[in-house]
Amino acid sequence: MAAQGFLRHIGVRVTAVEPGMVELTIDVGDEHTQRERFVHGGMLATLADSSSGLAAMTLLEAHDNALTVEFKINFLRPAVGERMVARGRVIRAGQRISVMEADVFAVAGGLETPVAKALVTYATVRDQQP
Amino acid sequence: MAAQGFLRHIGVRVTAVEPGMVELTIDVGDEHTQRERFVHGGMLATLADSSSGLAAMTLLEAHDNALTVEFKINFLRPAVGERMVARGRVIRAGQRISVMEADVFAVAGGLETPVAKALVTYATVRDQQP
Amino acid sequence: MAAQGFLRHIGVRVTAVEPGMVELTIDVGDEHTQRERFVHGGMLATLADSSSGLAAMTLLEAHDNALTVEFKINFLRPAVGERMVARGRVIRAGQRISVMEADVFAVAGGLETPVAKALVTYATVRDQQP
Amino acid sequence: MAAQGFLRHIGVRVTAVEPGMVELTIDVGDEHTQRERFVHGGMLATLADSSSGLAAMTLLEAHDNALTVEFKINFLRPAVGERMVARGRVIRAGQRISVMEADVFAVAGGLETPVAKALVTYATVRDQQP
Repeated sequence: MAAQGFLRHIGVRVTAVEPGMVELTIDVGDEHTQRERFVHGGMLATLADSSSGLAAMTLLEAHDNALTVEFKINFLRPAVGERMVARGRVIRAGQRISVMEADVFAVAGGLETPVAKALVTYATVRDQQP
Repeated sequence: MAAQGFLRHIGVRVTAVEPGMVELTIDVGDEHTQRERFVHGGMLATLADSSSGLAAMTLLEAHDNALTVEFKINFLRPAVGERMVARGRVIRAGQRISVMEADVFAVAGGLETPVAKALVTYATVRDQQP
Repeated sequence: MAAQGFLRHIGVRVTAVEPGMVELTIDVGDEHTQRERFVHGGMLATLADSSSGLAAMTLLEAHDNALTVEFKINFLRPAVGERMVARGRVIRAGQRISVMEADVFAVAGGLETPVAKALVTYATVRDQQP
Repeated sequence: MAAQGFLRHIGVRVTAVEPGMVELTIDVGDEHTQRERFVHGGMLATLADSSSGLAAMTLLEAHDNALTVEFKINFLRPAVGERMVARGRVIRAGQRISVMEADVFAVAGGLETPVAKALVTYATVRDQQP
């Protein structure tokens, strides 16, 4: 994450990693919100995209790489809470294409409420020599 | 934009406004990039989403509001340049739903190269009393 | 379904209905396939879209209506099987907007294999007088 | 098209081909409509997906293939008309991934009205030996 200038600048932390799943978290501050004090959709999209891309990478070999192709995100409710948590999960790890779904939750008083859901596509680039 | 904590934190400026079109710009810095020094996909998605939402608002009445429903973005090329410029344009302004397309360009040496394209949906909330 | 000329023409049957969930099925024939004998992506998209729209309607009042806004579908594997089954489920039933996810499976020898996944948005039109 | 059972069954014709662009047309009949007599969203999605895939193929070598990865479609207006016409255009032809946009129009009395817009992704499989 140290090399990830954007994710560091906006305070994204990796809070769980399993084969095929990565969880990212932000502690919500004024720097994440839009004019109505909800967390900005671009912030939620960043969490969905990044948790998905990192989830794809957990299933790759050391010299492979995963390149973002596209994603789509639906916003389900205003995103209000102390933390936002995104979990990206691989639903199809193909030779060329990996597909992930990401669920983003607002956490308030210990309760998780779904605020966004995404479908995310990465291309797999195999066997890159270092 | 002053009330937009997230957009201010990541250095987004409004650089053009017309009825049905808004252009947003960032001057690229280390705080926008991912591990390969390209501008992060979440940053490009934020520009696409926000330019589209603001474009929708240029066509609304004073007490109406536009709520983000969803968007989809394709990444076309590695995003490398001095600036990133996004132009969101309304392609359908409906009673309930507005649809926008957003094109994001990398600007380097005065040349614009397309790096991402998005389709964006907002819901229109009419006639909100202040 | 009798009034649904397109769905009838392509042989779509409703095979399960619950509040918030509808399952659609086709028995695969030559009229559903593309040049490589896989079921055509447009056919899978139709199943995903329609099962989602019908799922949205299971949660509406008698005079409400659900209008398709958009959908996005990822194709996970070549769609080969005796039947294709799609299950659309409401993941957010809002006042204005309903969001569904749809999973499409190929059924062969009694086994279901996921072949596509969609995120689907409908707008809710409330209280239409007949 | 002769090998395309689904497209033939639903009456899709190729009406224009250029490098990077393919136009598909249907003459609207009862077999294309949903309960309100508009052309079914799945039908429009099929036109958008197929015109895009064929457009991708116009830019490939003889033994290459294009595999559908995903698409997203926004419905802009009720689709009413004598014909539906879809034009898929390549906006990025990459080594691994091709990205298309497709515009679908209703034609009535010689006038075209936009009814849907899609962003479409195909994977390119290079150099397949026959």
